[in-house]
Amino acid sequence: MSTSFLADLFSTIAGSSRALWDISRGQKVDNTPEGLIALCETLMTSRGEASGVAIANSILQGYLGLEDEARLAFLTALTQQFGVDLEKTRTGAEDYLADPSAEAALKLHNAAEPRRQELIRRLNRAPGGTAALVAMRSDILAVMKAYPEFREADRDFQHLFASWFNRGFLVLRRIDWHTPAIILEKIIRYEAVHEINGWDDLRQRVDAPDRHLYAFFHPSLIDEPLIFVEVALTASLPDSVTDILDPERDKLQPDRASVATFYAISNCQVGLRGVSFGSFLIKQVVQELSLELPSLRTYTTLSPIPGLRNWLDTITGFGGPEDDLLHRLREAPKDAWPELNSAEQTQLRELAADYFINRKQPDGQPVDPVARFHLGNGARLERININGDLSANGIERSFGLMVNYVYDLDQIESNHEAYANNAEIVTSAQVRKLVKGRKPPMIQEPAHAE
Amino acid sequence: MSTSFLADLFSTIAGSSRALWDISRGQKVDNTPEGLIALCETLMTSRGEASGVAIANSILQGYLGLEDEARLAFLTALTQQFGVDLEKTRTGAEDYLADPSAEAALKLHNAAEPRRQELIRRLNRAPGGTAALVAMRSDILAVMKAYPEFREADRDFQHLFASWFNRGFLVLRRIDWHTPAIILEKIIRYEAVHEINGWDDLRQRVDAPDRHLYAFFHPSLIDEPLIFVEVALTASLPDSVTDILDPERDKLQPDRASVATFYAISNCQVGLRGVSFGSFLIKQVVQELSLELPSLRTYTTLSPIPGLRNWLDTITGFGGPEDDLLHRLREAPKDAWPELNSAEQTQLRELAADYFINRKQPDGQPVDPVARFHLGNGARLERININGDLSANGIERSFGLMVNYVYDLDQIESNHEAYANNAEIVTSAQVRKLVKGRKPPMIQEPAHAE
Amino acid sequence: MSTSFLADLFSTIAGSSRALWDISRGQKVDNTPEGLIALCETLMTSRGEASGVAIANSILQGYLGLEDEARLAFLTALTQQFGVDLEKTRTGAEDYLADPSAEAALKLHNAAEPRRQELIRRLNRAPGGTAALVAMRSDILAVMKAYPEFREADRDFQHLFASWFNRGFLVLRRIDWHTPAIILEKIIRYEAVHEINGWDDLRQRVDAPDRHLYAFFHPSLIDEPLIFVEVALTASLPDSVTDILDPERDKLQPDRASVATFYAISNCQVGLRGVSFGSFLIKQVVQELSLELPSLRTYTTLSPIPGLRNWLDTITGFGGPEDDLLHRLREAPKDAWPELNSAEQTQLRELAADYFINRKQPDGQPVDPVARFHLGNGARLERININGDLSANGIERSFGLMVNYVYDLDQIESNHEAYANNAEIVTSAQVRKLVKGRKPPMIQEPAHAE
Amino acid sequence: MSTSFLADLFSTIAGSSRALWDISRGQKVDNTPEGLIALCETLMTSRGEASGVAIANSILQGYLGLEDEARLAFLTALTQQFGVDLEKTRTGAEDYLADPSAEAALKLHNAAEPRRQELIRRLNRAPGGTAALVAMRSDILAVMKAYPEFREADRDFQHLFASWFNRGFLVLRRIDWHTPAIILEKIIRYEAVHEINGWDDLRQRVDAPDRHLYAFFHPSLIDEPLIFVEVALTASLPDSVTDILDPERDKLQPDRASVATFYAISNCQVGLRGVSFGSFLIKQVVQELSLELPSLRTYTTLSPIPGLRNWLDTITGFGGPEDDLLHRLREAPKDAWPELNSAEQTQLRELAADYFINRKQPDGQPVDPVARFHLGNGARLERININGDLSANGIERSFGLMVNYVYDLDQIESNHEAYANNAEIVTSAQVRKLVKGRKPPMIQEPAHAE
Repeated sequence: MSTSFLADLFSTIAGSSRALWDISRGQKVDNTPEGLIALCETLMTSRGEASGVAIANSILQGYLGLEDEARLAFLTALTQQFGVDLEKTRTGAEDYLADPSAEAALKLHNAAEPRRQELIRRLNRAPGGTAALVAMRSDILAVMKAYPEFREADRDFQHLFASWFNRGFLVLRRIDWHTPAIILEKIIRYEAVHEINGWDDLRQRVDAPDRHLYAFFHPSLIDEPLIFVEVALTASLPDSVTDILDPERDKLQPDRASVATFYAISNCQVGLRGVSFGSFLIKQVVQELSLELPSLRTYTTLSPIPGLRNWLDTITGFGGPEDDLLHRLREAPKDAWPELNSAEQTQLRELAADYFINRKQPDGQPVDPVARFHLGNGARLERININGDLSANGIERSFGLMVNYVYDLDQIESNHEAYANNAEIVTSAQVRKLVKGRKPPMIQEPAHAE
Repeated sequence: MSTSFLADLFSTIAGSSRALWDISRGQKVDNTPEGLIALCETLMTSRGEASGVAIANSILQGYLGLEDEARLAFLTALTQQFGVDLEKTRTGAEDYLADPSAEAALKLHNAAEPRRQELIRRLNRAPGGTAALVAMRSDILAVMKAYPEFREADRDFQHLFASWFNRGFLVLRRIDWHTPAIILEKIIRYEAVHEINGWDDLRQRVDAPDRHLYAFFHPSLIDEPLIFVEVALTASLPDSVTDILDPERDKLQPDRASVATFYAISNCQVGLRGVSFGSFLIKQVVQELSLELPSLRTYTTLSPIPGLRNWLDTITGFGGPEDDLLHRLREAPKDAWPELNSAEQTQLRELAADYFINRKQPDGQPVDPVARFHLGNGARLERININGDLSANGIERSFGLMVNYVYDLDQIESNHEAYANNAEIVTSAQVRKLVKGRKPPMIQEPAHAE
Repeated sequence: MSTSFLADLFSTIAGSSRALWDISRGQKVDNTPEGLIALCETLMTSRGEASGVAIANSILQGYLGLEDEARLAFLTALTQQFGVDLEKTRTGAEDYLADPSAEAALKLHNAAEPRRQELIRRLNRAPGGTAALVAMRSDILAVMKAYPEFREADRDFQHLFASWFNRGFLVLRRIDWHTPAIILEKIIRYEAVHEINGWDDLRQRVDAPDRHLYAFFHPSLIDEPLIFVEVALTASLPDSVTDILDPERDKLQPDRASVATFYAISNCQVGLRGVSFGSFLIKQVVQELSLELPSLRTYTTLSPIPGLRNWLDTITGFGGPEDDLLHRLREAPKDAWPELNSAEQTQLRELAADYFINRKQPDGQPVDPVARFHLGNGARLERININGDLSANGIERSFGLMVNYVYDLDQIESNHEAYANNAEIVTSAQVRKLVKGRKPPMIQEPAHAE
Repeated sequence: MSTSFLADLFSTIAGSSRALWDISRGQKVDNTPEGLIALCETLMTSRGEASGVAIANSILQGYLGLEDEARLAFLTALTQQFGVDLEKTRTGAEDYLADPSAEAALKLHNAAEPRRQELIRRLNRAPGGTAALVAMRSDILAVMKAYPEFREADRDFQHLFASWFNRGFLVLRRIDWHTPAIILEKIIRYEAVHEINGWDDLRQRVDAPDRHLYAFFHPSLIDEPLIFVEVALTASLPDSVTDILDPERDKLQPDRASVATFYAISNCQVGLRGVSFGSFLIKQVVQELSLELPSLRTYTTLSPIPGLRNWLDTITGFGGPEDDLLHRLREAPKDAWPELNSAEQTQLRELAADYFINRKQPDGQPVDPVARFHLGNGARLERININGDLSANGIERSFGLMVNYVYDLDQIESNHEAYANNAEIVTSAQVRKLVKGRKPPMIQEPAHAE
């Protein structure tokens, strides 16, 4: 394969070209917010064309060198001065209404494009430009609550990022012990679901025979994973993440595994918020694994139930024995979690099933965000597990319960359609049984949509 | 450097992932134009999300398998059914005029976007999608004269390609004798200026010590150069491309070269027409060369003058000795080109200088397209060379004349501004001298803009 | 996999390090044969250690810069001055006989080692040293007939090369259209069996779906294949190389092939003569192919019979109809080769079978060198093919006959043992049938061993 | 460069080929020491050729699977059964003495070669063979004190390793934060001079702007550094390793450094003991650095003085104030090391200078092993530093003293010759001054050679 030519090729992106453009042609750049904004105007004019790459580079390097306050000033100017041209839009709208042709619509479309979009496209010409723009957007997101007017600029970034980080430009890559440290370090840093405690813990997750880790990368973000998923290979559907994370477990030889479990998915780039990768990642990893390990029969998750406890806390009572159980659990110390008998386990499972199937947002989707993600992807709610995660976090979120969503390749599409069209929650028979005939709870106050 | 991780990474794009998605999940695709267009509609609806990559793949594979007639039917439907939503645009325009806010402008902007753009973005999710879309656009361009209504679709492709093939996503790569044959073969095929006659001739251009060849690549177009430039290293400003192409020349050691000459620039991808790479390519190659060979002092081209002969043919006469000369040249056999004495050479040079400096399009730019390109990039018209290209082609185009445009790093920016703002043609003193005091020619009919 | 780190790693061998050592520390080297031989003595003394790499580099660069005559002078001195130390050997032998211990044997072993071996080891420290030493040996081989005294030096090179080019240090690599031109060019140049006529012909052999080409490489010989084998994938046992080389053939999809045919094996490095790679190459390619294409059932060759015609020419007559046939064939014009009827074909096949099975060297091995190679590897003589190679060469060698040797994985080992221990020629039943009951020929004079 | 083709190429070594040979052809291997030794005999006979690679693989895999006791049995048999053939050697010696020709010497040389050498060469044909053989030798070295008869076998390994790990086959590689974790982990493990405390400490040594780390690799030892050197870039000659290892130091930009200090060299492969890499490594790193950082003026070490304290402890007294000082230092607590005044510092320096210059082994070389290494390489003893290493170890070894050896490119060769020919200790003027006029010490007992 021609892999190596390509390989060489992309090494160039970060390396030499970055160095090249550091060679200034002796021009002094005014590194104040005002100076940089003035440079942005230059970049937008035809005058900037000849040395566009150098100007874009100066702006982005300049921005990255600014202190917080100055960055804020820059972003404010970016918001105020590079929005849509209202006057041009007005003319375009009037022209269109006078003669509603496709031609006029296109002119109007262009007229109504915020100037920022062209600016961002031109800034992206700089070497390392994409990374700098992603960083700029994460600055915006960090302060957007306080500066809601930045939302406009944010939308422009998101629009372009969605195009640039199109699935077709992403590359899936297995991460293992041969991966460069600079990438592994970021896996440790970005893991958001089950914290990685240093390099030894990391090695458990990437270098054991029964563990895989996959990430998406983009050619323009050197050394930066976009999103990654951790996979455990097991002999049966797993019910406890503690077992999965146990370094002392018996390690399964991969060719004997029949189940692949996605036990953590972590987004890495704050600046790419809203550009969705997760669904594509899961599906491509399923494909990779199915080619590599033909013994696999089941692709599942072992997922948290982030909204369960919150929801239970809104309920005054069910009028049955579960009320006592809930009371006990609320009082129980996290470090001495009570053993539950079989009846109690069923009660808990029933509560959770009820939560998944009946508790909806105003738009008809389940209140649980993780459920929305996997069901929306076409997965099936398979099983509710007691004591799946007895970490402090797990108890706090869901009294230790976890859940499996199963990705059944033959049904993904129909599941997805049932969910997308009718908000139908596809579940296994065992989960359905748990809700049959339950009385509705006494709700303290209406559940909030998230 | 982390080059190798990257390298591995991008090898994935073409290789395994392409194979992965060939695994159909047993669904039969209707590979007629109508069937594929129906799939496009599915892809546009939310229902298609779950298996979006597979659907996109089916559409593109299906399209590539169509015969000419059927492709035409597909493209016609693409043009007619995926344009802008006129009704939504109308509402948006009215709303905007009623309340001309940035918010409303954005809504309007989105409403007026042709549906094709989102369709193309979704098609691009397929592995190899970008290449297939570039091929689709080259089909459009091939028939656009006969089907001018395709222009709308073409604009949508061009708009998205301009964003995706942004300078920041391109990678410069030197091509040499270590380059894979699959790339070199395309260099032979795509050379558009001075034909490459097979592998031995190619080797002369990439493997001699005094010859370099550089190309831009994009991560998503495997094994496909986008544009390339051929460079000759010489001891002085070259005046004849025959000398440059002569395999028997004395080969200069690169560290003794003081001049780097760009003697051919070739665009490779018809489907990327209108997305400009040339200016960026020249500038980055200048930077690469200046780092690698500190002895270089001058960066120049040796360029054809494609419009000279055409223009001279519009002229009834100058009323001087040049009329006789032109008459002689028009009659001269191409394979026995007359020797010119010093006065005649000066006459020819004067005519050419006049052509460059005084013959303008209605927009004030020179009629010569190569001049527009290099002057627009900030180069300077340096010297007019007699007998620069005595090939049949060279005589046909410009009586054998060629010209050097010099890229002077310290003046690129100001040259460009002078050209962009005032359409000023920046020339060397020797060229300026050639036009001083010349009478205007008797023009047969007005020069056509190209 | 850690492939990429390795990849980067070995790129260093040729690249930077070579450049590094060109930096001379200002010392002038005497580039005469005498000067270089004096440097060799310096390299052998402890005084040379500190700058051993630089000295070795000077010697090898100096040697490569010599004219033929001067190289000869250098090689003569190498032969005369760096042989074994006879006096030390005598002492060692006497000491050993006085006290025949393992300790004394080792001392003797060391004493009897030609000094050249240590010299060659030290020369090999230079960057690019291995390549230069291989070139030096090919110089020796080129003149060894005229200078038989060089045989001693030659043996030292061969001994060390056999150790350095140990199978464990070789790397198998598929050659295809993604391979760098600098390698492909050498495939064209080194093909020794069925000439490759330029790049288009090469592409037929490396880039068609039913053709593979594999080569062995060594880390220290940059861009240089050691040996390569060309493979055709077919539906049945092939009987004609003309069919295999036909560019107009129907091309088989690889996953439908049941037979892999090795139709040419070429050694590339004259300087490595006597270091055998062929057997290892065939066996590893069999393994590669069996993993990649599970549909393959048969691994065979389509081989020339280089000694057949020569042998037939030594025979006065068989006293049967084959004498007439042979007469006709000897007279037949090569460009109008006669059609043979079924009886004649059988006669020819019988003659060939007789040749393979009964015509032996004094050591009991067959006179045919290709037969010795494949039978020694454990292959089976499977079938004799009429009109297998009707090129001028093929007719000249063997009246157009070719033969298949089959590598049957389950029998390679026992075949090899039968051949190695008892000189048994393992053949298929159909070949055995051809020789049964044949009378011995009237031989003009005894066949010469090759 | 053709780096990428090479890169791909060597990725094969560990990867696919290893897998290939795991495919056994259904033969059961007798994995006892006796069974494996019997296989070794098979491998030595011609009968083993056909499946030599598979047999070699079985032996090495079998050996690696043995328990300690069984390995010992295998190694004992290897020692006893694969030594030199005494009878053949006797005949060879007699033949030689009867006719002392070069021809006879070569025969004798071959006769006196231990059979083990050919066995080891054949074992090396297995994929991963070199690594397994290096491991086998490290087993031998681990028990050689108890089993001195293994020394013979050890010498055969060392002889072949010296040839295979010839400088010409080694590749220098910078190790940094982009290096795969599997390599970095080994750097942590193998550091022998100044322990690396986990990944954060490692990062200080490979990823700081003023720190480099270089290692030698060999194509056949995948993921295994052979030796590495740690380099600090500083503004002046360093006098304290504590300063160098301080993570809080001001980090120098590399282009402002004038001194490169080798502050630790660690051998990684026990099994390669006696094959020397250090001298080549230092010299090649000097060359790399001099190309990359032209500002560097001085290449030095900051080295321990491992034998100083031992030597001082042999001395009854000098009869001067240094006796009191030594007494105080011997009594001082390591965690509260006394401050020394200027006179005391000079006394200590004088003692150390005396140690270096006057304390010799019987062969005339200095007793200090680090001094022997660097002086033998052509370095100059430059400066003796008080409080260079106040770790427990440093005080224990040398009362905290350290020393700089300077590699002066223009004098390496002559320094080396002076040392090699006359055992001359090349020192700076300031060191020489320290010994002038000192009285000889009263030595308790003669210094031991190391």
